[in-house]
Amino acid sequence: MEKLNTNINIILGSQSPRRKELLKLMGLDFKVEKININEDFPTQFSATKAAIFLSKKKANAYTIRKNDLLICADTIVYSDKNIFGKPNTKKQAATMLQAISNKRHFVVTGVTIKMINKEVSFHERSIVYFNKLSKQEITFYIENYNALDKAGGYGIQDWIGIIGIKKISGCYYNVMGLPTSLVYNQIIKMATCL
Amino acid sequence: MEKLNTNINIILGSQSPRRKELLKLMGLDFKVEKININEDFPTQFSATKAAIFLSKKKANAYTIRKNDLLICADTIVYSDKNIFGKPNTKKQAATMLQAISNKRHFVVTGVTIKMINKEVSFHERSIVYFNKLSKQEITFYIENYNALDKAGGYGIQDWIGIIGIKKISGCYYNVMGLPTSLVYNQIIKMATCL
Repeated sequence: MEKLNTNINIILGSQSPRRKELLKLMGLDFKVEKININEDFPTQFSATKAAIFLSKKKANAYTIRKNDLLICADTIVYSDKNIFGKPNTKKQAATMLQAISNKRHFVVTGVTIKMINKEVSFHERSIVYFNKLSKQEITFYIENYNALDKAGGYGIQDWIGIIGIKKISGCYYNVMGLPTSLVYNQIIKMATCL
Repeated sequence: MEKLNTNINIILGSQSPRRKELLKLMGLDFKVEKININEDFPTQFSATKAAIFLSKKKANAYTIRKNDLLICADTIVYSDKNIFGKPNTKKQAATMLQAISNKRHFVVTGVTIKMINKEVSFHERSIVYFNKLSKQEITFYIENYNALDKAGGYGIQDWIGIIGIKKISGCYYNVMGLPTSLVYNQIIKMATCL
């Protein structure tokens, strides 16, 4: 990232530990801001439209200053039938994991990157194929890992992802919460032509 | 992994730090053995055949005892034109990264799991699509990360994978060196019906 304008203040508008980890692995210096919004979206929206809408809503809830580059994202897990949010209870997490067992589902992340004089939104979608998960495996995961913290009730980088995911099609890091190569290229574009 | 027979001694026949990390993340207790073989294979072999052949060769170079379960693997990175081993020099690493920039390549891992009375071999193939990498990005990666340690000159979990890989099709962990969900299911099969 040597090409980046060093006056830029990169701000991650997300408290997700996975997104923080990914930005660090991208070699970026950044600070984290907590942005609280009402995460409702119009019910007729598709998952993709909703993810972009929510990333914009987060970006627009923050007051941008000169040289700030704000990254906001929203990740939605969905299947042909359902949208899966973060489970509220262990029981809900088990129901979600049963629902994605032995089939494919989708993970879409909407991203908005905002500077004082420009704003870009985009999305990335990955397909995840789970093996059949046994009841014991689901229970073991929920009892030993933090399933409640994650949309769809699982983390691809957790035990259940490592033993249970057959394959993916798309960006792995998008499933973790941020389509890193798209974000990197967008930052390079925006932050080097000030 | 509660179902596993607890008398089983799992042995990883590989010194790869990535494979060690993945077995740990799978929740397995295991020990590591260094197995030295001549890694030549018949030149007419396809990459897949070579990866399986080398995993078998490693497994057969170790003396299995009762209750041992030995896991050996070999990962080969290849394109339509070339097979990419581990680069010997930074210059070779740069040439490999140039060769996989802006196109797709394949990663195949052959795995052999061996017990005293049975032996199973299988493979998994993933497709990796890289964005166009600039000379600066390739140089930055090679100067700051351990490219020489890895087939193809890159680690998918390294900076270059995070900023440079557009998408994959297949198992992510296979690209790291072990198709974890296949290995897990095979261990469950072999170690619970002793």
